[in-house]
Amino acid sequence: MYRHTVHYYETDKMGVAHHSNYIRWMEEARVAFLDSIGWDYARVEEEGIVSPVLGIECRYRSFTRFSDTVDIDVWVESFTGARLRFGYDMKNSAGQTVFTAVSEHCFMNPQGRVMRLKRDCPRLYDVLMSLAQEKAEKR
Amino acid sequence: MYRHTVHYYETDKMGVAHHSNYIRWMEEARVAFLDSIGWDYARVEEEGIVSPVLGIECRYRSFTRFSDTVDIDVWVESFTGARLRFGYDMKNSAGQTVFTAVSEHCFMNPQGRVMRLKRDCPRLYDVLMSLAQEKAEKR
Amino acid sequence: MYRHTVHYYETDKMGVAHHSNYIRWMEEARVAFLDSIGWDYARVEEEGIVSPVLGIECRYRSFTRFSDTVDIDVWVESFTGARLRFGYDMKNSAGQTVFTAVSEHCFMNPQGRVMRLKRDCPRLYDVLMSLAQEKAEKR
Amino acid sequence: MYRHTVHYYETDKMGVAHHSNYIRWMEEARVAFLDSIGWDYARVEEEGIVSPVLGIECRYRSFTRFSDTVDIDVWVESFTGARLRFGYDMKNSAGQTVFTAVSEHCFMNPQGRVMRLKRDCPRLYDVLMSLAQEKAEKR
Repeated sequence: MYRHTVHYYETDKMGVAHHSNYIRWMEEARVAFLDSIGWDYARVEEEGIVSPVLGIECRYRSFTRFSDTVDIDVWVESFTGARLRFGYDMKNSAGQTVFTAVSEHCFMNPQGRVMRLKRDCPRLYDVLMSLAQEKAEKR
Repeated sequence: MYRHTVHYYETDKMGVAHHSNYIRWMEEARVAFLDSIGWDYARVEEEGIVSPVLGIECRYRSFTRFSDTVDIDVWVESFTGARLRFGYDMKNSAGQTVFTAVSEHCFMNPQGRVMRLKRDCPRLYDVLMSLAQEKAEKR
Repeated sequence: MYRHTVHYYETDKMGVAHHSNYIRWMEEARVAFLDSIGWDYARVEEEGIVSPVLGIECRYRSFTRFSDTVDIDVWVESFTGARLRFGYDMKNSAGQTVFTAVSEHCFMNPQGRVMRLKRDCPRLYDVLMSLAQEKAEKR
Repeated sequence: MYRHTVHYYETDKMGVAHHSNYIRWMEEARVAFLDSIGWDYARVEEEGIVSPVLGIECRYRSFTRFSDTVDIDVWVESFTGARLRFGYDMKNSAGQTVFTAVSEHCFMNPQGRVMRLKRDCPRLYDVLMSLAQEKAEKR
Protein backbone atom coordinates (compact mmCIF):
# COMPACT_ATOMS: atom_id res chain seq x y z
CA MET A 1 0.00 0.00 0.00
CA TYR A 2 1.36 3.40 -1.00
CA ARG A 3 -0.03 6.60 0.47
CA HIS A 4 -0.13 9.94 -1.33
CA THR A 5 -1.33 13.12 0.37
CA VAL A 6 -2.90 15.64 -2.04
CA HIS A 7 -0.74 18.75 -2.31
CA TYR A 8 -2.09 22.27 -2.62
CA TYR A 9 -0.34 22.65 -5.99
CA GLU A 10 -2.20 19.57 -7.25
CA THR A 11 -5.61 21.24 -6.90
CA ASP A 12 -7.32 23.14 -9.71
CA LYS A 13 -9.90 25.91 -9.86
CA MET A 14 -12.70 23.38 -9.36
CA GLY A 15 -11.21 22.94 -5.86
CA VAL A 16 -10.25 19.28 -6.41
CA ALA A 17 -7.08 17.42 -7.38
CA HIS A 18 -6.57 17.88 -11.13
CA HIS A 19 -7.19 14.63 -12.99
CA SER A 20 -3.71 14.58 -14.56
CA ASN A 21 -2.14 14.08 -11.14
CA TYR A 22 -3.62 10.61 -10.71
CA ILE A 23 -1.43 9.46 -13.61
CA ARG A 24 1.57 10.68 -11.60
CA TRP A 25 0.35 8.99 -8.42
CA MET A 26 0.08 5.74 -10.43
CA GLU A 27 3.80 6.11 -11.17
CA GLU A 28 4.64 6.88 -7.53
CA ALA A 29 2.79 3.76 -6.42
CA ARG A 30 4.28 1.60 -9.20
CA VAL A 31 7.81 2.67 -8.21
CA ALA A 32 7.05 1.79 -4.56
CA PHE A 33 5.58 -1.56 -5.62
CA LEU A 34 8.65 -2.51 -7.69
CA ASP A 35 10.76 -1.48 -4.72
CA SER A 36 8.75 -3.76 -2.44
CA ILE A 37 9.36 -6.80 -4.67
CA GLY A 38 13.11 -6.13 -4.77
CA TRP A 39 13.23 -4.43 -8.15
CA ASP A 40 13.94 -0.84 -7.23
CA TYR A 41 14.87 1.58 -9.95
CA ALA A 42 18.65 1.33 -9.38
CA ARG A 43 18.53 -2.45 -9.89
CA VAL A 44 16.34 -2.24 -12.99
CA GLU A 45 18.66 0.39 -14.43
CA GLU A 46 21.71 -1.77 -13.68
CA GLU A 47 20.13 -4.52 -15.76
CA GLY A 48 19.79 -2.00 -18.60
CA ILE A 49 15.99 -2.05 -18.64
CA VAL A 50 13.60 0.81 -19.29
CA SER A 51 9.87 0.18 -19.14
CA PRO A 52 7.80 2.85 -20.87
CA VAL A 53 4.04 3.19 -20.56
CA LEU A 54 2.23 1.90 -23.67
CA GLY A 55 -1.29 2.66 -22.57
CA ILE A 56 -3.57 3.62 -19.70
CA GLU A 57 -7.24 2.99 -19.00
CA CYS A 58 -8.61 4.79 -15.98
CA ARG A 59 -11.86 5.74 -14.28
CA TYR A 60 -12.32 8.75 -12.00
CA ARG A 61 -14.94 7.67 -9.45
CA SER A 62 -14.87 10.44 -6.87
CA PHE A 63 -13.02 13.72 -6.32
CA THR A 64 -10.13 14.17 -3.90
CA ARG A 65 -9.24 17.47 -2.26
CA PHE A 66 -6.25 19.26 -0.76
CA SER A 67 -4.72 17.32 2.18
CA ASP A 68 -6.80 14.19 1.52
CA THR A 69 -4.85 10.95 1.88
CA VAL A 70 -5.08 8.54 -1.04
CA ASP A 71 -4.16 4.91 -0.39
CA ILE A 72 -3.01 3.21 -3.57
CA ASP A 73 -3.03 -0.52 -4.12
CA VAL A 74 -0.97 -1.79 -7.10
CA TRP A 75 -0.70 -5.31 -8.49
CA VAL A 76 0.49 -7.21 -11.55
CA GLU A 77 -2.70 -7.65 -13.54
CA SER A 78 -1.16 -9.76 -16.32
CA PHE A 79 2.22 -10.55 -17.91
CA THR A 80 2.91 -12.15 -21.26
CA GLY A 81 6.69 -11.91 -21.20
CA ALA A 82 6.55 -8.94 -23.56
CA ARG A 83 3.66 -6.97 -22.12
CA LEU A 84 3.11 -6.19 -18.44
CA ARG A 85 -0.14 -4.77 -17.08
CA PHE A 86 -0.45 -3.21 -13.63
CA GLY A 87 -3.80 -2.70 -11.88
CA TYR A 88 -4.45 0.22 -9.51
CA ASP A 89 -7.09 1.00 -6.92
CA MET A 90 -7.02 4.33 -5.05
CA LYS A 91 -9.11 4.81 -1.91
CA ASN A 92 -9.79 7.89 0.20
CA SER A 93 -9.57 7.85 4.01
CA ALA A 94 -13.21 6.70 4.21
CA GLY A 95 -12.26 3.57 2.27
CA GLN A 96 -14.16 4.71 -0.83
CA THR A 97 -12.57 3.94 -4.20
CA VAL A 98 -11.83 7.25 -5.95
CA PHE A 99 -9.90 5.99 -8.98
CA THR A 100 -9.13 2.70 -10.73
CA ALA A 101 -6.75 2.09 -13.60
CA VAL A 102 -4.71 -0.34 -15.65
CA SER A 103 -1.38 0.60 -17.25
CA GLU A 104 0.44 -1.42 -19.90
CA HIS A 105 4.23 -1.49 -20.25
CA CYS A 106 6.89 -3.05 -22.44
CA PHE A 107 10.61 -3.52 -21.82
CA MET A 108 13.36 -1.83 -23.80
CA ASN A 109 17.09 -1.40 -23.53
CA PRO A 110 18.37 2.19 -23.20
CA GLN A 111 18.83 2.29 -27.01
CA GLY A 112 15.10 1.73 -27.49
CA ARG A 113 15.22 -1.90 -28.69
CA VAL A 114 12.47 -4.13 -27.31
CA MET A 115 13.78 -6.74 -24.85
CA ARG A 116 12.63 -10.31 -24.32
CA LEU A 117 12.68 -10.51 -20.54
CA LYS A 118 12.74 -14.33 -20.39
CA ARG A 119 16.12 -14.32 -22.13
CA ASP A 120 17.46 -10.89 -21.20
CA CYS A 121 16.52 -10.73 -17.50
CA PRO A 122 15.14 -14.11 -16.36
CA ARG A 123 15.03 -13.22 -12.66
CA LEU A 124 12.66 -10.29 -13.25
CA TYR A 125 10.71 -12.46 -15.71
CA ASP A 126 10.20 -15.10 -13.01
CA VAL A 127 9.05 -12.62 -10.37
CA LEU A 128 6.52 -10.95 -12.69
CA MET A 129 5.24 -14.27 -14.05
CA SER A 130 4.65 -15.64 -10.56
CA LEU A 131 2.83 -12.44 -9.49
CA ALA A 132 0.65 -12.65 -12.61
CA GLN A 133 -0.19 -16.29 -11.86
CA GLU A 134 -1.08 -15.46 -8.26
CA LYS A 135 -3.44 -12.80 -9.54
CA ALA A 136 -5.01 -15.16 -12.10
CA GLU A 137 -5.63 -17.80 -9.40
CA LYS A 138 -7.44 -15.26 -7.20
CA ARG A 139 -10.00 -14.52 -9.91
CA MET B 1 -6.00 21.66 -34.92
CA TYR B 2 -4.21 22.66 -31.73
CA ARG B 3 -0.41 22.78 -31.55
CA HIS B 4 1.63 22.14 -28.41
CA THR B 5 5.40 22.56 -28.33
CA VAL B 6 7.12 20.25 -25.81
CA HIS B 7 8.65 22.29 -22.99
CA TYR B 8 11.95 21.50 -21.32
CA TYR B 9 10.17 21.06 -17.97
CA GLU B 10 7.92 18.42 -19.55
CA THR B 11 10.85 16.07 -20.25
CA ASP B 12 11.97 13.35 -17.84
CA LYS B 13 15.26 11.54 -17.21
CA MET B 14 14.55 9.20 -20.13
CA GLY B 15 14.98 12.33 -22.29
CA VAL B 16 11.39 12.29 -23.57
CA ALA B 17 8.15 14.08 -22.64
CA HIS B 18 6.80 12.43 -19.48
CA HIS B 19 3.66 10.43 -20.23
CA SER B 20 1.53 12.39 -17.71
CA ASN B 21 1.85 15.53 -19.82
CA TYR B 22 -0.18 14.09 -22.68
CA ILE B 23 -3.20 14.07 -20.36
CA ARG B 24 -2.65 17.82 -19.90
CA TRP B 25 -2.23 18.38 -23.65
CA MET B 26 -5.58 16.61 -24.14
CA GLU B 27 -7.11 19.26 -21.90
CA GLU B 28 -5.36 22.11 -23.74
CA ALA B 29 -6.70 20.81 -27.05
CA ARG B 30 -10.20 20.17 -25.65
CA VAL B 31 -10.40 23.74 -24.35
CA ALA B 32 -9.32 25.07 -27.77
CA PHE B 33 -11.87 22.81 -29.50
CA LEU B 34 -14.75 24.03 -27.31
CA ASP B 35 -13.58 27.56 -28.01
CA SER B 36 -13.68 26.89 -31.76
CA ILE B 37 -17.32 25.71 -31.61
CA GLY B 38 -18.38 28.79 -29.66
CA TRP B 39 -18.42 27.22 -26.20
CA ASP B 40 -15.40 28.79 -24.57
CA TYR B 41 -14.92 28.35 -20.86
CA ALA B 42 -16.45 31.72 -19.89
CA ARG B 43 -19.70 30.83 -21.68
CA VAL B 44 -19.86 27.31 -20.22
CA GLU B 45 -19.27 28.75 -16.76
CA GLU B 46 -22.00 31.37 -17.27
CA GLU B 47 -24.41 28.53 -17.98
CA GLY B 48 -23.37 26.99 -14.66
CA ILE B 49 -21.86 23.86 -16.19
CA VAL B 50 -18.78 21.94 -15.08
CA SER B 51 -17.68 18.91 -17.05
CA PRO B 52 -15.36 16.60 -15.12
CA VAL B 53 -13.38 13.76 -16.68
CA LEU B 54 -14.94 10.37 -15.91
CA GLY B 55 -12.42 8.22 -17.69
CA ILE B 56 -9.52 8.11 -20.14
CA GLU B 57 -8.24 5.42 -22.48
CA CYS B 58 -4.98 6.26 -24.19
CA ARG B 59 -2.14 4.71 -26.21
CA TYR B 60 1.40 6.02 -26.32
CA ARG B 61 2.64 5.19 -29.83
CA SER B 62 5.91 7.09 -30.09
CA PHE B 63 8.05 9.35 -27.90
CA THR B 64 8.18 13.11 -28.23
CA ARG B 65 11.15 15.23 -27.18
CA PHE B 66 11.98 18.76 -26.03
CA SER B 67 10.96 21.40 -28.63
CA ASP B 68 8.99 18.90 -30.75
CA THR B 69 5.72 20.25 -32.06
CA VAL B 70 2.67 18.07 -31.42
CA ASP B 71 -0.43 18.70 -33.55
CA ILE B 72 -3.56 17.61 -31.76
CA ASP B 73 -6.83 16.77 -33.48
CA VAL B 74 -9.92 16.60 -31.21
CA TRP B 75 -13.45 15.56 -32.09
CA VAL B 76 -16.74 14.54 -30.48
CA GLU B 77 -16.58 10.76 -30.58
CA SER B 78 -20.05 10.17 -29.15
CA PHE B 79 -22.73 11.90 -27.08
CA THR B 80 -25.72 10.37 -25.30
CA GLY B 81 -27.04 13.52 -23.69
CA ALA B 82 -25.54 12.47 -20.37
CA ARG B 83 -22.13 11.19 -21.46
CA LEU B 84 -19.78 12.93 -23.88
CA ARG B 85 -16.74 11.25 -25.37
CA PHE B 86 -13.92 13.15 -27.10
CA GLY B 87 -11.41 11.48 -29.42
CA TYR B 88 -7.80 12.67 -29.75
CA ASP B 89 -5.03 12.10 -32.24
CA MET B 90 -1.60 13.66 -31.69
CA LYS B 91 0.95 13.80 -34.52
CA ASN B 92 4.59 14.87 -34.58
CA SER B 93 6.01 17.18 -37.24
CA ALA B 94 6.68 14.18 -39.50
CA GLY B 95 2.93 13.44 -39.48
CA GLN B 96 3.39 10.30 -37.39
CA THR B 97 0.74 9.58 -34.75
CA VAL B 98 2.43 9.64 -31.34
CA PHE B 99 -0.63 9.33 -29.09
CA THR B 100 -4.34 8.51 -29.36
CA ALA B 101 -7.00 8.76 -26.67
CA VAL B 102 -10.63 8.94 -25.75
CA SER B 103 -11.91 10.85 -22.72
CA GLU B 104 -15.39 10.58 -21.22
CA HIS B 105 -17.16 13.46 -19.47
CA CYS B 106 -20.43 14.18 -17.70
CA PHE B 107 -22.08 17.49 -16.91
CA MET B 108 -22.66 18.84 -13.42
CA ASN B 109 -23.76 22.08 -11.86
CA PRO B 110 -21.23 23.80 -9.56
CA GLN B 111 -22.88 22.05 -6.58
CA GLY B 112 -21.99 18.66 -8.05
CA ARG B 113 -25.47 17.59 -9.19
CA VAL B 114 -25.59 15.82 -12.57
CA MET B 115 -27.25 17.94 -15.28
CA ARG B 116 -29.49 16.83 -18.14
CA LEU B 117 -28.13 18.96 -20.96
CA LYS B 118 -31.22 18.60 -23.19
CA ARG B 119 -33.30 20.37 -20.57
CA ASP B 120 -30.67 22.44 -18.75
CA CYS B 121 -28.66 23.76 -21.70
CA PRO B 122 -30.40 22.83 -24.99
CA ARG B 123 -28.11 24.96 -27.19
CA LEU B 124 -25.00 23.09 -26.06
CA TYR B 125 -26.96 19.82 -26.31
CA ASP B 126 -27.79 20.56 -29.96
CA VAL B 127 -24.21 21.44 -30.91
CA LEU B 128 -22.75 18.31 -29.32
CA MET B 129 -25.45 16.06 -30.73
CA SER B 130 -24.91 17.35 -34.26
CA LEU B 131 -21.13 16.90 -33.95
CA ALA B 132 -21.66 13.35 -32.71
CA GLN B 133 -23.97 12.59 -35.66
CA GLU B 134 -21.48 14.03 -38.14
CA LYS B 135 -18.86 11.75 -36.67
CA ALA B 136 -21.15 8.70 -36.82
CA GLU B 137 -21.94 9.37 -40.48
CA LYS B 138 -18.25 9.49 -41.38
CA ARG B 139 -17.69 5.98 -40.05
CA MET C 1 11.44 18.45 9.42
CA TYR C 2 9.53 17.51 6.27
CA ARG C 3 10.82 14.83 3.90
CA HIS C 4 10.19 14.77 0.16
CA THR C 5 11.33 11.88 -2.03
CA VAL C 6 12.11 12.92 -5.62
CA HIS C 7 9.59 11.38 -8.02
CA TYR C 8 10.44 10.10 -11.47
CA TYR C 9 8.05 12.62 -13.03
CA GLU C 10 9.96 15.44 -11.30
CA THR C 11 13.16 14.70 -13.24
CA ASP C 12 14.08 16.41 -16.51
CA LYS C 13 16.23 15.47 -19.49
CA MET C 14 19.35 16.61 -17.60
CA GLY C 15 18.62 13.62 -15.32
CA VAL C 16 18.02 15.76 -12.23
CA ALA C 17 14.94 17.16 -10.44
CA HIS C 18 13.68 20.11 -12.48
CA HIS C 19 14.30 23.38 -10.65
CA SER C 20 10.60 24.37 -10.67
CA ASN C 21 9.78 21.46 -8.35
CA TYR C 22 11.71 22.97 -5.43
CA ILE C 23 9.14 25.78 -5.36
CA ARG C 24 6.47 23.10 -4.91
CA TRP C 25 8.47 21.33 -2.21
CA MET C 26 8.70 24.67 -0.37
CA GLU C 27 4.90 24.71 -0.32
CA GLU C 28 4.69 21.08 0.86
CA ALA C 29 7.06 21.86 3.73
CA ARG C 30 5.31 25.15 4.59
CA VAL C 31 1.95 23.36 4.81
CA ALA C 32 3.48 20.71 7.11
CA PHE C 33 5.10 23.44 9.24
CA LEU C 34 1.82 25.34 9.70
CA ASP C 35 0.21 22.02 10.58
CA SER C 36 2.88 21.39 13.22
CA ILE C 37 2.20 24.74 14.94
CA GLY C 38 -1.55 24.06 15.05
CA TRP C 39 -2.53 26.15 12.04
CA ASP C 40 -3.43 23.51 9.49
CA TYR C 41 -5.16 24.59 6.31
CA ALA C 42 -8.68 23.78 7.53
CA ARG C 43 -8.26 26.09 10.53
CA VAL C 44 -6.73 28.91 8.50
CA GLU C 45 -9.59 28.61 6.01
CA GLU C 46 -12.17 28.69 8.81
CA GLU C 47 -10.69 32.00 9.92
CA GLY C 48 -11.20 33.26 6.36
CA ILE C 49 -7.48 33.76 5.66
CA VAL C 50 -5.60 33.19 2.41
CA SER C 51 -1.89 33.79 2.31
CA PRO C 52 -0.52 34.25 -1.22
CA VAL C 53 3.18 34.23 -2.09
CA LEU C 54 4.48 37.76 -2.76
CA GLY C 55 8.04 36.84 -3.59
CA ILE C 56 10.71 34.15 -3.54
CA GLU C 57 14.50 34.28 -3.39
CA CYS C 58 16.22 30.94 -3.81
CA ARG C 59 19.61 29.37 -4.46
CA TYR C 60 20.15 25.99 -6.11
CA ARG C 61 23.31 24.61 -4.49
CA SER C 62 23.42 21.02 -5.68
CA PHE C 63 21.37 18.71 -7.91
CA THR C 64 18.97 16.07 -6.61
CA ARG C 65 18.02 12.95 -8.52
CA PHE C 66 15.20 10.43 -8.81
CA SER C 67 14.49 8.64 -5.48
CA ASP C 68 16.74 11.01 -3.47
CA THR C 69 15.30 12.03 -0.14
CA VAL C 70 15.24 15.77 0.55
CA ASP C 71 14.87 16.88 4.18
CA ILE C 72 13.33 20.32 4.39
CA ASP C 73 13.67 22.64 7.36
CA VAL C 74 11.22 25.59 7.47
CA TRP C 75 11.09 28.48 9.93
CA VAL C 76 9.57 31.92 10.39
CA GLU C 77 12.33 34.22 9.24
CA SER C 78 10.55 37.48 10.08
CA PHE C 79 7.04 38.85 10.68
CA THR C 80 5.90 42.46 10.66
CA GLY C 81 2.19 41.84 11.21
CA ALA C 82 1.53 42.47 7.52
CA ARG C 83 4.41 40.58 5.91
CA LEU C 84 5.56 37.08 6.83
CA ARG C 85 8.83 35.59 5.61
CA PHE C 86 9.63 31.88 5.78
CA GLY C 87 13.16 30.49 5.52
CA TYR C 88 13.93 27.10 3.95
CA ASP C 89 16.91 24.77 3.97
CA MET C 90 16.82 21.52 1.97
CA LYS C 91 19.41 18.81 2.60
CA ASN C 92 20.12 15.55 0.78
CA SER C 93 20.65 12.25 2.62
CA ALA C 94 24.37 13.06 3.00
CA GLY C 95 23.41 16.16 5.00
CA GLN C 96 24.54 18.50 2.23
CA THR C 97 22.43 21.62 1.63
CA VAL C 98 21.00 21.43 -1.90
CA PHE C 99 18.68 24.44 -1.83
CA THR C 100 17.96 27.48 0.32
CA ALA C 101 15.15 29.99 -0.01
CA VAL C 102 13.05 32.70 1.54
CA SER C 103 9.40 33.26 0.62
CA GLU C 104 7.34 36.33 1.51
CA HIS C 105 3.60 36.24 2.14
CA CYS C 106 0.76 38.58 3.00
CA PHE C 107 -2.69 37.83 4.39
CA MET C 108 -5.96 38.41 2.57
CA ASN C 109 -9.59 37.54 3.04
CA PRO C 110 -11.18 35.35 0.34
CA GLN C 111 -12.38 38.55 -1.43
CA GLY C 112 -8.78 39.68 -1.87
CA ARG C 113 -8.71 42.46 0.73
CA VAL C 114 -5.49 42.66 2.76
CA MET C 115 -6.00 41.66 6.41
CA ARG C 116 -4.40 43.08 9.55
CA LEU C 117 -3.67 39.91 11.47
CA LYS C 118 -3.30 41.64 14.86
CA ARG C 119 -6.91 42.74 14.69
CA ASP C 120 -8.43 40.10 12.40
CA CYS C 121 -6.80 36.95 13.78
CA PRO C 122 -4.87 37.77 16.98
CA ARG C 123 -4.14 34.13 17.89
CA LEU C 124 -2.29 33.49 14.62
CA TYR C 125 -0.62 36.91 14.99
CA ASP C 126 0.71 35.92 18.43
CA VAL C 127 2.05 32.55 17.27
CA LEU C 128 3.87 34.04 14.27
CA MET C 129 5.24 36.97 16.27
CA SER C 130 6.65 34.69 18.95
CA LEU C 131 8.27 32.41 16.31
CA ALA C 132 9.81 35.47 14.65
CA GLN C 133 11.17 36.69 17.99
CA GLU C 134 12.63 33.26 18.78
CA LYS C 135 14.38 33.36 15.43
CA ALA C 136 15.69 36.90 16.00
CA GLU C 137 17.11 35.92 19.40
CA LYS C 138 19.02 32.99 17.90
CA ARG C 139 20.88 35.30 15.54
CA MET D 1 8.08 38.78 -26.66
CA TYR D 2 6.83 35.34 -25.70
CA ARG D 3 3.15 34.67 -24.99
CA HIS D 4 1.85 32.05 -22.58
CA THR D 5 -1.86 31.32 -22.18
CA VAL D 6 -2.79 30.08 -18.69
CA HIS D 7 -3.95 26.48 -18.85
CA TYR D 8 -6.77 25.04 -16.74
CA TYR D 9 -4.33 22.57 -15.16
CA GLU D 10 -2.14 25.47 -14.05
CA THR D 11 -4.86 26.89 -11.77
CA ASP D 12 -5.18 26.01 -8.09
CA LYS D 13 -8.05 25.96 -5.61
CA MET D 14 -7.66 29.72 -5.06
CA GLY D 15 -8.85 30.01 -8.69
CA VAL D 16 -5.60 31.55 -9.95
CA ALA D 17 -2.48 30.26 -11.69
CA HIS D 18 -0.36 28.47 -9.06
CA HIS D 19 2.80 30.45 -8.28
CA SER D 20 5.12 27.56 -9.21
CA ASN D 21 4.04 27.81 -12.84
CA TYR D 22 5.64 31.23 -13.32
CA ILE D 23 9.03 29.58 -12.82
CA ARG D 24 8.15 27.27 -15.74
CA TRP D 25 6.95 30.20 -17.88
CA MET D 26 10.32 31.87 -17.22
CA GLU D 27 11.96 28.82 -18.77
CA GLU D 28 9.57 28.82 -21.75
CA ALA D 29 10.36 32.47 -22.42
CA ARG D 30 14.13 31.97 -21.89
CA VAL D 31 14.16 29.13 -24.42
CA ALA D 32 12.29 31.31 -26.93
CA PHE D 33 14.70 34.20 -26.29
CA LEU D 34 17.81 32.04 -26.88
CA ASP D 35 16.12 30.79 -30.04
CA SER D 36 15.58 34.36 -31.21
CA ILE D 37 19.28 35.23 -30.83
CA GLY D 38 20.34 32.15 -32.80
CA TRP D 39 21.22 29.94 -29.85
CA ASP D 40 18.42 27.41 -29.87
CA TYR D 41 18.74 24.37 -27.67
CA ALA D 42 20.03 22.06 -30.43
CA ARG D 43 22.95 24.42 -31.13
CA VAL D 44 23.80 24.91 -27.45
CA GLU D 45 23.72 21.13 -26.98
CA GLU D 46 25.98 20.63 -30.01
CA GLU D 47 28.52 22.90 -28.35
CA GLY D 48 28.33 20.65 -25.28
CA ILE D 49 26.91 23.33 -22.99
CA VAL D 50 24.37 22.95 -20.21
CA SER D 51 23.26 26.01 -18.29
CA PRO D 52 21.63 25.20 -14.94
CA VAL D 53 19.72 27.72 -12.83
CA LEU D 54 21.77 28.88 -9.83
CA GLY D 55 19.20 31.18 -8.30
CA ILE D 56 15.93 33.01 -8.78
CA GLU D 57 14.52 36.21 -7.29
CA CYS D 58 10.91 36.92 -8.17
CA ARG D 59 7.95 39.08 -7.21
CA TYR D 60 4.32 38.14 -7.72
CA ARG D 61 2.52 41.44 -8.38
CA SER D 62 -0.93 40.37 -9.51
CA PHE D 63 -2.85 37.12 -10.04
CA THR D 64 -3.47 35.53 -13.43
CA ARG D 65 -6.41 33.26 -14.19
CA PHE D 66 -7.39 30.46 -16.56
CA SER D 67 -7.20 31.53 -20.23
CA ASP D 68 -5.41 34.81 -19.44
CA THR D 69 -2.61 35.64 -21.85
CA VAL D 70 0.73 36.50 -20.27
CA ASP D 71 3.24 38.40 -22.40
CA ILE D 72 6.78 37.74 -21.23
CA ASP D 73 9.72 40.01 -21.93
CA VAL D 74 13.19 38.49 -21.33
CA TRP D 75 16.59 40.16 -21.52
CA VAL D 76 20.22 39.65 -20.53
CA GLU D 77 20.47 41.57 -17.28
CA SER D 78 24.21 41.01 -16.78
CA PHE D 79 27.02 38.68 -17.86
CA THR D 80 30.44 38.24 -16.27
CA GLY D 81 31.69 35.45 -18.51
CA ALA D 82 31.00 32.93 -15.77
CA ARG D 83 27.61 34.10 -14.50
CA LEU D 84 24.66 35.08 -16.69
CA ARG D 85 21.57 36.84 -15.32
CA PHE D 86 18.30 37.08 -17.22
CA GLY D 87 15.59 39.63 -16.37
CA TYR D 88 11.87 38.91 -16.85
CA ASP D 89 8.74 41.02 -16.96
CA MET D 90 5.32 39.38 -17.40
CA LYS D 91 2.28 41.48 -18.34
CA ASN D 92 -1.40 40.58 -18.59
CA SER D 93 -3.56 41.60 -21.55
CA ALA D 94 -4.31 44.94 -19.87
CA GLY D 95 -0.57 45.72 -19.96
CA GLN D 96 -0.25 45.40 -16.16
CA THR D 97 2.92 43.77 -14.84
CA VAL D 98 1.94 40.59 -12.98
CA PHE D 99 5.40 39.15 -12.26
CA THR D 100 9.03 40.20 -12.40
CA ALA D 101 12.12 38.07 -11.88
CA VAL D 102 15.83 37.60 -12.31
CA SER D 103 17.44 34.19 -12.82
CA GLU D 104 21.15 33.42 -12.55
CA HIS D 105 22.88 30.71 -14.58
CA CYS D 106 26.33 29.20 -15.02
CA PHE D 107 27.73 27.10 -17.85
CA MET D 108 28.82 23.49 -17.51
CA ASN D 109 29.82 20.67 -19.81
CA PRO D 110 27.60 17.55 -19.75
CA GLN D 111 29.98 16.02 -17.17
CA GLY D 112 29.21 18.86 -14.75
CA ARG D 113 32.51 20.76 -15.02
CA VAL D 114 32.18 24.55 -15.08
CA MET D 115 33.05 26.05 -18.47
CA ARG D 116 34.77 29.33 -19.27
CA LEU D 117 32.67 30.56 -22.16
CA LYS D 118 35.27 33.04 -23.47
CA ARG D 119 37.63 30.15 -24.19
CA ASP D 120 35.19 27.26 -24.65
CA CYS D 121 32.51 28.92 -26.77
CA PRO D 122 33.64 32.42 -27.81
CA ARG D 123 30.77 33.02 -30.23
CA LEU D 124 28.14 32.60 -27.49
CA TYR D 125 30.37 34.63 -25.15
CA ASP D 126 30.41 37.51 -27.65
CA VAL D 127 26.64 37.50 -28.16
CA LEU D 128 25.87 37.49 -24.43
CA MET D 129 28.50 40.13 -23.67
CA SER D 130 27.14 42.48 -26.31
CA LEU D 131 23.56 41.99 -25.05
CA ALA D 132 24.73 42.74 -21.49
CA GLN D 133 26.50 45.89 -22.65
CA GLU D 134 23.42 47.07 -24.56
CA LYS D 135 21.40 46.61 -21.40
CA ALA D 136 23.98 48.50 -19.28
CA GLU D 137 23.96 51.42 -21.70
CA LYS D 138 20.19 51.73 -21.52
CA ARG D 139 20.31 52.26 -17.76
